[in-house]
Amino acid sequence: MIRESVVLRVHPGREAEYEAAFRAASSIIARQPGYSAHTLHRGIEDASTYLLTVEWESVEAHETGFRGSVDYQEWRRLLHPFYVELPPVPHYREVDLTRG
Amino acid sequence: MIRESVVLRVHPGREAEYEAAFRAASSIIARQPGYSAHTLHRGIEDASTYLLTVEWESVEAHETGFRGSVDYQEWRRLLHPFYVELPPVPHYREVDLTRG
Repeated sequence: MIRESVVLRVHPGREAEYEAAFRAASSIIARQPGYSAHTLHRGIEDASTYLLTVEWESVEAHETGFRGSVDYQEWRRLLHPFYVELPPVPHYREVDLTRG
Repeated sequence: MIRESVVLRVHPGREAEYEAAFRAASSIIARQPGYSAHTLHRGIEDASTYLLTVEWESVEAHETGFRGSVDYQEWRRLLHPFYVELPPVPHYREVDLTRG
């Protein structure tokens, strides 16, 4: 399992509209092969920033599978207009803190 | 519940040493009042970056409680030497994606 984690900046004043659009878009990402879970968090110090976290079976499930899908076109159509810019989206693997 | 989320850059070549130090330091953060959970993820595209996620009962539990504690001095002593720089550490509140 790997984690996609990215901080996204939404045009100030459009936060409520973005959250509604994100709710509508959630079913799109949730039906992708290799998808496991996702959350959206809103910034406390900067309320126009959002932390998107998605758990995938592999980087390929996100980058090749989802981004190469017709569904992604709809995801992008619903959400990308809200973003001030589109940062690179890195992936992470959990460090086992219990061993050793 | 709120989430502390920050990407930390470790001096290249010191990753294994950092992970060992982080394991040793984990018990420090886990015993703080208002602490709930934490994870450490390592970057896949950039293996010298780490995503630290901590769930706290409140921002104050982190910023006033933990950062004002004697324990924090030990946390800092164990971990901060590994970081290339110390970025601001933002906090986030989960958006309810199930409503409306």
